[in-house]
Amino acid sequence: MKMRLRLCGCITMSAVSLLLSGSSLPADDSHKEPRIKLVVHGGAGTITREKMTPDMEQQYRAKLAEALQEGYKVLKSGGSSMDAIEAAIRVMEDSPLFNAGKGAVFTSAGTNELDASVMDGASLKAGAAAALRRVKNPISLARLVMDKSRHVMMAGEGAEEFARRQGMKPVSRKYFFTEHRWRQLQEARKKEMQRSANRLALNETYLGTVGAVALDQEGRLAAGTSTGGMTNKRPGRVGDSPVIGAGTYADNRTCAVSATGEGEYIIRLGVARDISALMEYQGKSVNEAADMVVMEKLARLGGTGGVIAMDRNGNHAWPFNTSGMYRGFIDADGKIVIKIYKD
Amino acid sequence: MKMRLRLCGCITMSAVSLLLSGSSLPADDSHKEPRIKLVVHGGAGTITREKMTPDMEQQYRAKLAEALQEGYKVLKSGGSSMDAIEAAIRVMEDSPLFNAGKGAVFTSAGTNELDASVMDGASLKAGAAAALRRVKNPISLARLVMDKSRHVMMAGEGAEEFARRQGMKPVSRKYFFTEHRWRQLQEARKKEMQRSANRLALNETYLGTVGAVALDQEGRLAAGTSTGGMTNKRPGRVGDSPVIGAGTYADNRTCAVSATGEGEYIIRLGVARDISALMEYQGKSVNEAADMVVMEKLARLGGTGGVIAMDRNGNHAWPFNTSGMYRGFIDADGKIVIKIYKD
Repeated sequence: MKMRLRLCGCITMSAVSLLLSGSSLPADDSHKEPRIKLVVHGGAGTITREKMTPDMEQQYRAKLAEALQEGYKVLKSGGSSMDAIEAAIRVMEDSPLFNAGKGAVFTSAGTNELDASVMDGASLKAGAAAALRRVKNPISLARLVMDKSRHVMMAGEGAEEFARRQGMKPVSRKYFFTEHRWRQLQEARKKEMQRSANRLALNETYLGTVGAVALDQEGRLAAGTSTGGMTNKRPGRVGDSPVIGAGTYADNRTCAVSATGEGEYIIRLGVARDISALMEYQGKSVNEAADMVVMEKLARLGGTGGVIAMDRNGNHAWPFNTSGMYRGFIDADGKIVIKIYKD
Repeated sequence: MKMRLRLCGCITMSAVSLLLSGSSLPADDSHKEPRIKLVVHGGAGTITREKMTPDMEQQYRAKLAEALQEGYKVLKSGGSSMDAIEAAIRVMEDSPLFNAGKGAVFTSAGTNELDASVMDGASLKAGAAAALRRVKNPISLARLVMDKSRHVMMAGEGAEEFARRQGMKPVSRKYFFTEHRWRQLQEARKKEMQRSANRLALNETYLGTVGAVALDQEGRLAAGTSTGGMTNKRPGRVGDSPVIGAGTYADNRTCAVSATGEGEYIIRLGVARDISALMEYQGKSVNEAADMVVMEKLARLGGTGGVIAMDRNGNHAWPFNTSGMYRGFIDADGKIVIKIYKD
């Protein structure tokens, strides 16, 4: 048996998965050697060439590339997909460009409340942290909840207290102040007063959630998502990002998913879990499943957003029903592809 | 078309659902007239005849019957399934018998933190509230989040502030003090100190979550769940009960589900959403789907618990992989059945 494991580890792993799941997953391409790969997103929403300056576009591209390279280093050296997504997401959290960590949007009370979650596709272990006000890197707290607590999800002061006990130094609330997010809040408030908030404006209020999915040398999938939520949200609002099954899901037998968009709709559909279910129960490819959920089911319900999703063979999909989504991947050879618009 | 709607409302509704879903649900019994029905649970866990006194058993049976009757009144008079589950759950929240509302367990800090959620199967609208300390009826706050906010999920102080603005009067924290829950905390602390906490003990720490699923005269399904979480949980811990897709899910095309048990496992599997997915994507009956998820998938992952689930024709299932689950239903004729043990 040990010999067999060495000779054809993938097939055996896959057979064990089938045995464990009791479902009839297609075994079409499970003989392929897992190749490392990392996919990231920096949010879906109203992103058009007209509104983008060349300088801004260059900044986004550079930061997405940096995130991909940080995660790639982990994967290349034999690290886990979980370590890779955490490394990639921390880069985006530390940048003011994205609505996560440093660049988090403001609530209606002028505060910042951050959410994040991670999931490991091999063990189905997960961790999530919500409504954080003083945690610099929510993705790392989600990871700690998974690794160091008996729990899957923690929120608010209790989550922050857990962070402190785990040695995470709280940052000042001022850390999250950025001029452009503050301006966005004022604009959102004005629109709300004028009752003129339309869907276009709404699209802009949540833009910038970040996420990553990765496949490591041992064929393990992992997913993670981090966000500041939506501009002008009521304090205490929890979006889809820290909700396992909505914003984040990973299962080695199917796929790893990170979603971005109108969290309320993503929770109601259970977007990430639904993509996995379509692969598990109907044998859909990751492309078909992600497309069905984002382009058909989410759109039909009236929700906007997108996902990045990757199967255990490194096939990825990144459908979005908005005008753009910051996204990119790095493959086993270190080749980077970054896209922003539909094309 | 209007005539057709009148003549065969159910078939037309079902056809619209199929159109909306794009999936191939079996239409086998969708011609049946929806008949009102309400199913409730008061938690799954280690419940054995040896540990139960006749007096206690009588108390549980009486309170479950009262909850069923309250919900039945709503359904019988033409009210919505959402109103019915709220009414039924409030009865259980107001009783010290269950780990929800009044009878909520204590956190490791000696506080009480309550979670709840609701979902409407017709619109897929949902509401959830988590980590509440001063809300008497968390199920009603979850309902308000659904009906009166732009959000699906709210947690902690922000959720309580929203409750106050909606006119819910906060209760004193002392309201949640019950002698037997306080004793349970001391026992859990002792066991944790002795590092002797075993699974049997763990089963006892979360026992008593309440939930309800209902079908109204218009064929609408609704589900709701309310809990105090698990004894000795870290403050800020959020379990499955307020997580849409984990503890609660409802979709008229498939089923309404409320789960109870080890929340961490229920979140990782997305238990309620998974039962719905098996019906949607594999055409399983509510019985088959609920059994597969609770008795096979949840058990295989190492999680204990149970669910109540009902399809749009009023067929219900209530599998649990523990020794008992407080549960009961009331059918269209007002007949009540209440069960506690396996038999």
